[in-house]
Amino acid sequence: MADELDAVVRADQTMPDHLSMRDEDGEIRADFVAAISRAIAEENAPFLREIVSDLHEADVGDLIEALDSDERVRLVELTGADFHFSALNEVDETVREEILEELEPEAVAEGVRELDSDDAVELLQVLDEDEQDEILGKLPQSERDALERSLDYPENSAGRRMQTEFIVVPRDWNVGQAIDFMRETPDLPDRFYEIYVVDGINRWQGAIALDALLRSHRDVPLADLIDEDRRKVSVLDDQEEVARLFGKYNLVAAPVVDTDDRLVGVITIDDVVDVIEEEADEDLKALGGVSSGEELSDRVWTIARSRFNWLLVNLATAFLASSVLGLFEGALEQMVALAVLAPIVASQGGNAATQTMTVAVRALATRELGSSNAYRVVMRELLVGLVNGIGFAIITGLAAYAWFRVPGLGVVIGLAMVTNLVAGALGGILIPIALDRFRVDPAVASGTFVTTVTDVVGFFAFLGIATLWFGLK
Amino acid sequence: MADELDAVVRADQTMPDHLSMRDEDGEIRADFVAAISRAIAEENAPFLREIVSDLHEADVGDLIEALDSDERVRLVELTGADFHFSALNEVDETVREEILEELEPEAVAEGVRELDSDDAVELLQVLDEDEQDEILGKLPQSERDALERSLDYPENSAGRRMQTEFIVVPRDWNVGQAIDFMRETPDLPDRFYEIYVVDGINRWQGAIALDALLRSHRDVPLADLIDEDRRKVSVLDDQEEVARLFGKYNLVAAPVVDTDDRLVGVITIDDVVDVIEEEADEDLKALGGVSSGEELSDRVWTIARSRFNWLLVNLATAFLASSVLGLFEGALEQMVALAVLAPIVASQGGNAATQTMTVAVRALATRELGSSNAYRVVMRELLVGLVNGIGFAIITGLAAYAWFRVPGLGVVIGLAMVTNLVAGALGGILIPIALDRFRVDPAVASGTFVTTVTDVVGFFAFLGIATLWFGLK
Repeated sequence: MADELDAVVRADQTMPDHLSMRDEDGEIRADFVAAISRAIAEENAPFLREIVSDLHEADVGDLIEALDSDERVRLVELTGADFHFSALNEVDETVREEILEELEPEAVAEGVRELDSDDAVELLQVLDEDEQDEILGKLPQSERDALERSLDYPENSAGRRMQTEFIVVPRDWNVGQAIDFMRETPDLPDRFYEIYVVDGINRWQGAIALDALLRSHRDVPLADLIDEDRRKVSVLDDQEEVARLFGKYNLVAAPVVDTDDRLVGVITIDDVVDVIEEEADEDLKALGGVSSGEELSDRVWTIARSRFNWLLVNLATAFLASSVLGLFEGALEQMVALAVLAPIVASQGGNAATQTMTVAVRALATRELGSSNAYRVVMRELLVGLVNGIGFAIITGLAAYAWFRVPGLGVVIGLAMVTNLVAGALGGILIPIALDRFRVDPAVASGTFVTTVTDVVGFFAFLGIATLWFGLK
Repeated sequence: MADELDAVVRADQTMPDHLSMRDEDGEIRADFVAAISRAIAEENAPFLREIVSDLHEADVGDLIEALDSDERVRLVELTGADFHFSALNEVDETVREEILEELEPEAVAEGVRELDSDDAVELLQVLDEDEQDEILGKLPQSERDALERSLDYPENSAGRRMQTEFIVVPRDWNVGQAIDFMRETPDLPDRFYEIYVVDGINRWQGAIALDALLRSHRDVPLADLIDEDRRKVSVLDDQEEVARLFGKYNLVAAPVVDTDDRLVGVITIDDVVDVIEEEADEDLKALGGVSSGEELSDRVWTIARSRFNWLLVNLATAFLASSVLGLFEGALEQMVALAVLAPIVASQGGNAATQTMTVAVRALATRELGSSNAYRVVMRELLVGLVNGIGFAIITGLAAYAWFRVPGLGVVIGLAMVTNLVAGALGGILIPIALDRFRVDPAVASGTFVTTVTDVVGFFAFLGIATLWFGLK
């Protein structure tokens, strides 16, 4: 013990006080990471334990990501019981999986036992079923059962996100009894914001916020404080739906009930914040043609393969668009200016359509756009396309004439521009709405369709009108 | 009174029980909106008051957006004191501004008085200064001062988002004294999750979560429960920074201190959820070339004008790219297949670059990408670009040869494809990083630069290599 203390003191000397984890901008300092790497190489466990127990688990997570692959596992092993496994929920899934697979199942089981059930589920769900079973097998029966039940709920369901630790009280108690109960129960959940009232067979009755308890005198019956209108969530509800509920009604926690209306868990706002960020991440990536699972720590090969598929679809649509150009080979040969200008018509239409599509995808995701206002929004986008189409028809027409000095070329590109911006507006709004109706995520699939429309319409309109106007063939 | 009750009963008869606001999908029912419109036309105030006080303010907000412009103001006027002004914070800013400008300043001042300070600030900040002053002038001095102070903080700062109602206790109290204080103080904040400890001159000492109070016996000194490490926020911190803190450390509330470390307000998670959603919205729209202020209820002209600017920038870059094609007019005339295929090279590069850019923009926004890992991520993107570049060089080369049967054409387009995918990868990662260094929002500006790079490089590489290979001029 004296030895260990000594070691800590020596460790502290190698780590001066001013060497903190982050610089003023909140970025991790390179010399901090280097000091940790050194300590891992030297197996300086007391020093690492001190660091890890001083840091918030979110910071431990960031530290882990900044380390090299093999240092990560060593850090967890060297710090032992001082390492809080919730830090592993703060790192990319790829990294988490790597670490969990390297660690001894006993060590993982030990770490999982310290976690709230929702954190334990989040941790375990990155492993495949065999690995999960191996770890679950090392847990006490009751904990194993609870976790297996949660893992059985579909991915992205409320059942996966909920914690099964919560406080229930009977309806006929008063405030004093509820407070005494909390003072005397040893293993309350780590953090909680409300308590729940259930009937004799565990059916949901209502919620009581902690501030409501604290405002009231001891003799006030709980029945007076129960909020029976509180939104509840079903275990099978999609997490996106749950997040919307929290955002809309400003909740910090929501009870989760099973199909018989029995209270089985609680979802708290910190989990919902994660969901909101994940969903925003997914939509943004989907619109950019990146799979939602792609993480910054993924390897080159994994990333290249996952992006390849989407690019392949795009290549097919690019050939489709070019085949329209191919139809007009004769015209292109006779007037090379058409070949030079055609991409402008397609690109401008594509950009205008992307604007419309972005707004539509976002409004569908937030449910601002629904059947009640779809007609109004479609008409509005159509008009915006027309107005900007006319504007850019004039600008592009003048520019094209000024460039090539071919009489009529300005009119031709102008007409094509209006056509394509109107087509783009229609495609940009109708394609996401249609995909949403068919329960396909509009963020994932809209982009390809929309730019295909504007490429094909752009090329066809420009070269078709040019062929007629100039009598080409 | 009897008359009014009578009216309510009659109103209820025209509104059968089964006519609820939303259908199973959570969308507002058209017949519900129609019934409200009818009641507004008939000035059936008792019915509307009943509806408005039964609904959650978020639902009242949705209802308002579903109504016509002039009906919205009438609804607020007809429901009077039963209308809770926080519902106006749930509607688009355009709609909120319209309603507030139509209402009598007295009515608005009356409504503002009912709100928590953060909600009042959110409501008032859409108005211009004259209108704000007119309403503030009708408030009691102390409320006016508090709101004016908050409105003086920069937009998007913590000072604007915080509420100034919170509970402070002295450090030397025990749990019993704190609970008694809450029981006896009549106007506590509407909802709260923690109480704060300050010294004699209001300087921040620490926070105590309500669950910590409720677990402890009355004689436990507060000093034992204080969390002194709790993250705090400065009034001038950017709301995005605040949101990151909440997300990272799983907070439900954070104290806001001024430059002298005095506690001046509290930010709660519900406001932070709004910030997270706003920021996600902004990034998504920025990448799609739409201004963050654009709302679904904006008019055609407003939208067309705001999108026009971005399209104009794109038109300029499209002309720039086409001017590269113009350099090779001779080559295009000699071999029209080049004109047909050139857009494929540009488009594939643009899509690959957009993938990289999307990942970069998102990682910069979440601070996952920083100076500590920038080099690693750049190298990785470069390799991904190379790997997929080679893959698509082969596919496109074969397809191009199969289509035009020109020997060498496959090699030429293949080489151009690799070049452009590598250039796209570099542009896609370096441009956002550079913009971020120069404190320009990478989400707003990256897209244009990146696709300009891939258009220019794509056309130049393809036609340049073709010119050399085939000896064109």
